[in-house]
Amino acid sequence: MTTHAFGAHAADQPLVAMAIQRRAPGPLDVQIDIAYCGVCHSDLHTVRSEWPGTLYPCVPGHEIVGHVSAVGDAVSGFNVGDVVGVGCLVDSCRHCASCEEGLEQYCTSGMVGTYNGRTTDAPGHTLGGYSQRIVVDQRFVLHVRHPQAQLAAVAPLLCAGITTYSPLRHWGAGPGKKVGIVGIGGLGHMGVKIAHAMGAHVVAFTTSEAKRHEIHQLGADDVVNSRDAAQMQAHVGSFDFILNTVAAPHVLDAYTALLKRDGTLCLVGAPAAPHPSPNVAELIFHRKAIAGSLIGGLPETQEMLDFCAQHGIVADIEMIAAHDIDAAYARMLNSDVKYRFVIDCATMGV
Amino acid sequence: MTTHAFGAHAADQPLVAMAIQRRAPGPLDVQIDIAYCGVCHSDLHTVRSEWPGTLYPCVPGHEIVGHVSAVGDAVSGFNVGDVVGVGCLVDSCRHCASCEEGLEQYCTSGMVGTYNGRTTDAPGHTLGGYSQRIVVDQRFVLHVRHPQAQLAAVAPLLCAGITTYSPLRHWGAGPGKKVGIVGIGGLGHMGVKIAHAMGAHVVAFTTSEAKRHEIHQLGADDVVNSRDAAQMQAHVGSFDFILNTVAAPHVLDAYTALLKRDGTLCLVGAPAAPHPSPNVAELIFHRKAIAGSLIGGLPETQEMLDFCAQHGIVADIEMIAAHDIDAAYARMLNSDVKYRFVIDCATMGV
Repeated sequence: MTTHAFGAHAADQPLVAMAIQRRAPGPLDVQIDIAYCGVCHSDLHTVRSEWPGTLYPCVPGHEIVGHVSAVGDAVSGFNVGDVVGVGCLVDSCRHCASCEEGLEQYCTSGMVGTYNGRTTDAPGHTLGGYSQRIVVDQRFVLHVRHPQAQLAAVAPLLCAGITTYSPLRHWGAGPGKKVGIVGIGGLGHMGVKIAHAMGAHVVAFTTSEAKRHEIHQLGADDVVNSRDAAQMQAHVGSFDFILNTVAAPHVLDAYTALLKRDGTLCLVGAPAAPHPSPNVAELIFHRKAIAGSLIGGLPETQEMLDFCAQHGIVADIEMIAAHDIDAAYARMLNSDVKYRFVIDCATMGV
Repeated sequence: MTTHAFGAHAADQPLVAMAIQRRAPGPLDVQIDIAYCGVCHSDLHTVRSEWPGTLYPCVPGHEIVGHVSAVGDAVSGFNVGDVVGVGCLVDSCRHCASCEEGLEQYCTSGMVGTYNGRTTDAPGHTLGGYSQRIVVDQRFVLHVRHPQAQLAAVAPLLCAGITTYSPLRHWGAGPGKKVGIVGIGGLGHMGVKIAHAMGAHVVAFTTSEAKRHEIHQLGADDVVNSRDAAQMQAHVGSFDFILNTVAAPHVLDAYTALLKRDGTLCLVGAPAAPHPSPNVAELIFHRKAIAGSLIGGLPETQEMLDFCAQHGIVADIEMIAAHDIDAAYARMLNSDVKYRFVIDCATMGV
């Protein structure tokens, strides 16, 4: 079946309206009419071939929410009309150790991304959520239990939400723990909200002094201007965990120094050029670690959505129409968004 | 009281015989007649001012074993004639969170090293185990329960042993775990023996093809020549934990690639110049970590000594006389020792 989408035909082309094909739902498939799709930096990197391996036409989008419009015969747990989400992956090998543990994002065969992933469907690679309909195996579909009025603002939870929730949970953010969130953008603003809801003492690190008040409003107990040496010095040796959402190359030592013994600095953004080499003596002398984390598996993504519904957490968003995507990319590159663009997919094909 | 020692009067001077003062034992002090002292790379770095802050005269040595020759009135648990050891630290603040947990090596005020540490004793800094007698507060003295005939080979356990035991224990080396040990020198050969005794599957990484057979004899299940890309490739994604004892700058990515999801590469040597910046995408895409670890606290050092006594583990050593120390340093710099030099302290002052 044909559906309206927005995508690019080449790395140097703008995103344009296009018609794409979706498979007819198989026995285990859920067909979703997409209401909203969040705009993630990964979309831009992929569609412009800033990362290697982009296949065209490229339809980005992996922060998808919508309504079930059909289900396969063998689908259990999803019914027509259900409010659902799809995140960064739509398939995996399903039998490796990671898949069996519900950590499909670490599938040893490589997860199948929601866009630009291998598939037998035409055109041979997956096409993402900048579209009006998608068909996904039920294992990779999530229930959304937020109020309907919040649906657009739920979309970014599918990537920005789980990317921050998973490491915060894995490294034990909660009452009695002091947690830092570095970089208060699309990911970081979710990290502040989620860490606060988990009960941690949350310190946000930003280079934007102007955001101080609004970052407190997100749930930060303290806001540190990371360019101010005295403010940084006041927190040396005090953090249990720091989640660093900044992908631009920067000096990691500034944050490892702030950890307590046995603390972890977790990175979730891969820089285009390497960070300056970290000072490993700082790790040795206080048994600290630098680690990484990638989105989340399906069970944990459902847990995150339910946690956010229970705590009333959604993203702070700015809604755009499909024809505004390229302009939104330009603003995103300029950090001019609070904090996530979301596409109203009803604006496609009109 | 005066005791014979070997030390240097300046960074560019050889080690020479000298007479040093030890305090009279206070109520909580244990006076130890030193039998043997291991030779650690740190000794050389310190005595030659390759690390900042060396105070002279400098008497190195923090792998000390000997016999108790006097005890203070309030000492409990040590008696004259006991066989004991002293490792890398002889004091700490004793009231910070780390000290209260028995992790005195991470004392937030800074542990007092066995040499070159702050002390009120003359000459104002601690003088180490290249000497015939030392006086140490009982909290920092360990019981040695190995057979007397092994005493010289026990000495290196006090630094090389605990430096490897502590991270192996902390990161759960044991049955069902695949553990790598990188660099089979003074530290690494202890790591292989200890990890093997803990029940882990042990893979040793060396650049010295000639050592292959003897590294198997130490307890390695497999030996990998780290310069052979095919041998390295065969282990990609398979390790739970890798202990890296190499302090020279090198490409850490070669080892992070060998870790499983959630695996940790632990460094115990601080390089003089930074390692090439590690590939953080490898950390992100498999939730891996690069961490550090520093020797061990007193309770864990006692646990290590008892574990080694129980499993018949000592270091492989080459005994030297005090006047051979400079020659031993030269050989150590050339990796020409299997695997640790130990000074017979009876050769001092004769």
